[in-house]
Amino acid sequence: MTGALDNLRVVLVGTRNPLNLGAAARAMSNFGIAHLRVVNPYEVAFREARSAVGAAELLARAKEYGSVAEAVADCGLVVGTTAGGRRELQHELCRLDEGARRIKRKLRTGLVALLFGSEKVGLSNQEMSHCHWLMRIPTRAEHGSMNLGQAVAVCMYELARKEKAGPAKKKAKDEAARARAGDVERLTRLLLEVLRASGYVKPRVGAATQEKLRRMVRRLDLSAADAEVWLGMVRQTAWKLGVSESD
Amino acid sequence: MTGALDNLRVVLVGTRNPLNLGAAARAMSNFGIAHLRVVNPYEVAFREARSAVGAAELLARAKEYGSVAEAVADCGLVVGTTAGGRRELQHELCRLDEGARRIKRKLRTGLVALLFGSEKVGLSNQEMSHCHWLMRIPTRAEHGSMNLGQAVAVCMYELARKEKAGPAKKKAKDEAARARAGDVERLTRLLLEVLRASGYVKPRVGAATQEKLRRMVRRLDLSAADAEVWLGMVRQTAWKLGVSESD
Repeated sequence: MTGALDNLRVVLVGTRNPLNLGAAARAMSNFGIAHLRVVNPYEVAFREARSAVGAAELLARAKEYGSVAEAVADCGLVVGTTAGGRRELQHELCRLDEGARRIKRKLRTGLVALLFGSEKVGLSNQEMSHCHWLMRIPTRAEHGSMNLGQAVAVCMYELARKEKAGPAKKKAKDEAARARAGDVERLTRLLLEVLRASGYVKPRVGAATQEKLRRMVRRLDLSAADAEVWLGMVRQTAWKLGVSESD
Repeated sequence: MTGALDNLRVVLVGTRNPLNLGAAARAMSNFGIAHLRVVNPYEVAFREARSAVGAAELLARAKEYGSVAEAVADCGLVVGTTAGGRRELQHELCRLDEGARRIKRKLRTGLVALLFGSEKVGLSNQEMSHCHWLMRIPTRAEHGSMNLGQAVAVCMYELARKEKAGPAKKKAKDEAARARAGDVERLTRLLLEVLRASGYVKPRVGAATQEKLRRMVRRLDLSAADAEVWLGMVRQTAWKLGVSESD
């Protein structure tokens, strides 16, 4: 519909209930957001939702992925959603209306992924570690957890909502195209190899350390051009240390 | 929750699906809106929704009415909701965000009823005739009709939303202390040594290359905490490559 919103990728991670898949698709369609990706949905639920009478066309066109990393690989900004007062000390947390504004700025120049976790537990730490920052729907502390379809609807509304004010001023950093998540992930993995080879981390490094590193690299918020240079530097260093790129 | 929102009465008219009654109640609870009224619900659906496991307390306390007139009798303002491009020539039509602002002003001084019609047909002309004006959720013309539970969620969000995040809240990135220039420069120099040792740059690298690297490191806009970690990583890598810190 709108040009910029066409760059948005809604990513449902580990969704279990076919009704929620359908509800998410419907809300997207209501607000003119077309591209849905699903990561490890419950197979039966996904088939059911797709074949439901009146299933939105966009659900039929939804792409399926085996991991968050693959689902966001071509995106320059990856944002996770969370509800209520849950504390995510490891990530920058942005209120929905502010976050939507930031996302809309990025959409002008490239793809943005917006992640929704499973109904029961939301996004795991591992899944969140792929995110640049998190966006919080301002529900109340005593009952923060939203229904998935409703959470998607509220976010789609806020993203599609036209600002009252005129054209916003842009920040310089937003103008340069951001690095795609796939390249940032390659940088992260190669860096991890270098840190292993240098003895900074243990050879069999734990998931927590990997996630910490992943978040640190995301916080750099690299432009596409800079990411390429950094990747070159780390690759050369890795080569000198006798590391070979593993993927 | 908020004093003023306590004056809001959400009125579901002719709701048929118990899941939608439950979803509406949940969204209300999420956003701290407590008072639900139902007009002529399908009896079975209402009983089912009320007895559902985990039904919101506010659903149990919902009041039942035989007509819209009775349900809104004590309210000083009555607003109907409608989705999409439906033309309601007989009523003033207000966009959701503007409408929410008007409602919030009225809530300071008295009760306001917000009406949602049935899933199939929305509010009838007769039901609408009780409204002072209508509020439109800005869905797109081609697919305007929203799921009832999602429509309620979007309206509750907009009504509970605080205007312009308060003065206290800054972006996390601004709040975290930035790395001091001296530390950033140490990081830059050490990194240059690593790049020399790895063969990424020539041993006697020119000023232009150094400046380029310096700018790149500045663009990372590191926090003090992150800068320390990066410095540790680069120092360990330098050590492994046989470089000693030169300053």
